[in-house]
Amino acid sequence: MDKIRRRIKQIDWSVPFDIYSLFDKEKANIHPAELAGVLSNIPIEHALPIFESFSDDLKAYIFSYLEFPDQIILIKRLPTAQVGAILNNLSSDDRTQFFRDLSNEDRTNYLVLLNEENRKSTLDWLGYDEKSVARLVNEDFATIYKYMTVAEASEHLRKYHIDSEAANVVYVIDEDGKLLDDIQIRRLVMNEPERPVSDLMDGDYISLNIKDSVDDAIDKFMDYDRVVIPVVNDTHILVGVVTVDDIMDEFEARETEDIQKFGGVDKLDYPYVQTNFFKLTQKRATWLVVLFVGEMLTATAMSFYEEEIAAAVVLALFVPLVISSGGNSGSQAATLIIRALSLKEITLKDWWFVMDREILSGLTLGGILGAMGFFRIVAWHNFQWYDYGEHWLLIALTIFFSLIGIVLWGTLAGSMVPLLLKRLNLDPATSSAPFVATLVDVTGLIIYFSVAALILSGTLL
Amino acid sequence: MDKIRRRIKQIDWSVPFDIYSLFDKEKANIHPAELAGVLSNIPIEHALPIFESFSDDLKAYIFSYLEFPDQIILIKRLPTAQVGAILNNLSSDDRTQFFRDLSNEDRTNYLVLLNEENRKSTLDWLGYDEKSVARLVNEDFATIYKYMTVAEASEHLRKYHIDSEAANVVYVIDEDGKLLDDIQIRRLVMNEPERPVSDLMDGDYISLNIKDSVDDAIDKFMDYDRVVIPVVNDTHILVGVVTVDDIMDEFEARETEDIQKFGGVDKLDYPYVQTNFFKLTQKRATWLVVLFVGEMLTATAMSFYEEEIAAAVVLALFVPLVISSGGNSGSQAATLIIRALSLKEITLKDWWFVMDREILSGLTLGGILGAMGFFRIVAWHNFQWYDYGEHWLLIALTIFFSLIGIVLWGTLAGSMVPLLLKRLNLDPATSSAPFVATLVDVTGLIIYFSVAALILSGTLL
Repeated sequence: MDKIRRRIKQIDWSVPFDIYSLFDKEKANIHPAELAGVLSNIPIEHALPIFESFSDDLKAYIFSYLEFPDQIILIKRLPTAQVGAILNNLSSDDRTQFFRDLSNEDRTNYLVLLNEENRKSTLDWLGYDEKSVARLVNEDFATIYKYMTVAEASEHLRKYHIDSEAANVVYVIDEDGKLLDDIQIRRLVMNEPERPVSDLMDGDYISLNIKDSVDDAIDKFMDYDRVVIPVVNDTHILVGVVTVDDIMDEFEARETEDIQKFGGVDKLDYPYVQTNFFKLTQKRATWLVVLFVGEMLTATAMSFYEEEIAAAVVLALFVPLVISSGGNSGSQAATLIIRALSLKEITLKDWWFVMDREILSGLTLGGILGAMGFFRIVAWHNFQWYDYGEHWLLIALTIFFSLIGIVLWGTLAGSMVPLLLKRLNLDPATSSAPFVATLVDVTGLIIYFSVAALILSGTLL
Repeated sequence: MDKIRRRIKQIDWSVPFDIYSLFDKEKANIHPAELAGVLSNIPIEHALPIFESFSDDLKAYIFSYLEFPDQIILIKRLPTAQVGAILNNLSSDDRTQFFRDLSNEDRTNYLVLLNEENRKSTLDWLGYDEKSVARLVNEDFATIYKYMTVAEASEHLRKYHIDSEAANVVYVIDEDGKLLDDIQIRRLVMNEPERPVSDLMDGDYISLNIKDSVDDAIDKFMDYDRVVIPVVNDTHILVGVVTVDDIMDEFEARETEDIQKFGGVDKLDYPYVQTNFFKLTQKRATWLVVLFVGEMLTATAMSFYEEEIAAAVVLALFVPLVISSGGNSGSQAATLIIRALSLKEITLKDWWFVMDREILSGLTLGGILGAMGFFRIVAWHNFQWYDYGEHWLLIALTIFFSLIGIVLWGTLAGSMVPLLLKRLNLDPATSSAPFVATLVDVTGLIIYFSVAALILSGTLL
């Protein structure tokens, strides 16, 4: 793609342009996804005539591979008749997805361009919860009946489902359309033509309910290694299928959202480069401002200890070191627990197990960092790199015990807050690294100055 | 699964136990993955006799669904003959994966249990780079020849590939075994028996080279929405296939690694609950110690400003607030850029675009937080919640300009360090949230005290 991007930059737009000349291979071997990739890298005024030159089928195919912002730019400039043809030619899941992303006004405008059948089905799908698998359901699936022979089933498929994209698996339904079983289409090839379909049925199939969440669907695909799963409604009538390619896209989007949340950014609706500056800044500012307000408490906390700082300025020197250690160990613990929750390696029931383990971890890690901090001061003082005064050993002990306390607290907070959020039915990933760091900063200061007061009172304080 | 976990807890091990009684459905409908899930939740001494009661085929099937640590626990307790049967019955990709994870000593011990053909192929696969698709390659695929008719091809498949798991797609090869095309098996059903296979060929197929990286394979599956992709060697001979279920597992593992790295934890080899305490603490301590050493520079930096702090203790109060704002904005920027790089939304060529954009973001976000900090001091002082002395306005200005500088610097560092790492062919995700925060803490202090020196010299300083 990099090579092609370079070639795009060298195009001389003043002469007629053949998009296929960009590729090193024959026209027949170029995938619509590749054409979509090229088009989204060409300025719209040049991309438009190229797109219009394609057949209706290819237009819809390419359209389905474009990102939503590019879809909108394109469709707003196409003549209405072409728009209608594209939207009607889309597969039902791609169509539902497109309509779901539209503004209310655009949705009304484009719905009228659909033929009656497509409009009805799109409106049906749009009625389901946004988080349900409904928006991924493809109505393009192939069915056969139990009473058929393998030869009859094959004949039936040839006659009614020749274009069916998802037909690696066919579904056996009864007269009411209720799902009875799934059969890999290869089994129709592998079995003698005269065998009855009922012979191939084993009643062992996996299905999704139309109201199941996309998250459940992802789990089912992962757990059972499927490439397509049938979707039924509450009366077990087969309404469509979900395919693994859509599941992978959803999975990637979910991961992106988790990672961005963990980094302290609100979920972006579009890729980084396609999100406009204002929107991006707004999303970032929201979280930064919340964290800033929280962090302001550090200034308040510090002001309570102003006298101690004035009496022993040396205490201030270690503030960043001490509180950041709490933040870092908290971020670590939060990452581990959030990920383990998301992979279902632990559940809420493991609360006490996690707590026991993290207390032990916190003490060990705090002990290691505390020892390092202790020896840092002892070494600096004795090599005379820095003069910590006559109470240098007490200062070193203050750092030692503070670090144990703060790292323990950071580890505990980092690991328990995600579980707490989960318990409250909130997204554990909300306890982002910056969030945990802020939480630990404020409490860390209190721990630090309390330990200092305990150890240094009567000497420095 | 939760329901089943509860039931497992209630099992009375003193009486004979039927594993199928744990499920609410018929024996025929229970998936081997579900049995594997139950077995890994039962103490090994009870799980062993249950596992041994299964047929050889089912043992291998269940074994392939167990996590590696569970596989090891189980296999070390089984009689040698059973181990041999299981290992020989595994599919070639599962077998390669298992042998790759073994210690050198165990690998030698178990290799002798394989039959000659399996041992040769396992040793072949193990020879490839660990990051290459070789370890995911399944040798169980179905081939046909160009000169066959649809009926002959079907007959051929029935004869030679009836057990082929991955046979949703069959591959047309020439006499040397070179890959010519892929054909969806449903097209054999959908076409008249007397049509020649060559009629169905369109030369439009995607393949992977055996040396391609797993990352490339993931991208190809995502870009082309495939469920299976053939793998060829350097002479274009078809050597196997990679299926989407393995790709999803790899994808999930890659994401987990990225997220853990970003949270400042070394990649864990096993799930959180299965990693023993010592190993887990070691992984966490490594990064924490590195960060701690870096963060020690803050104490050094602060000591240079000890006189300023002694002269104006009020400056110390804002240290945590000011440096954490830099860390938070840096974490945000790093998340966005790391994710955009990983999704290939941006490449190294976008360096200047990203820099321009992040400078503008940094100034805007810094301006917002700076204004908040400014008004915090003005308000607290004027409502007499805190007395910042006669130079309160200068202090407020110090905070304002420091925040702009530090947030700008944090944003720039957070966004450019991942690109720099990528440029050096290192993993961008290494610039974790804690790493960026530490980097920004040290430099943030220097910015803060320099701005303070500039604004306050002659008054407070």
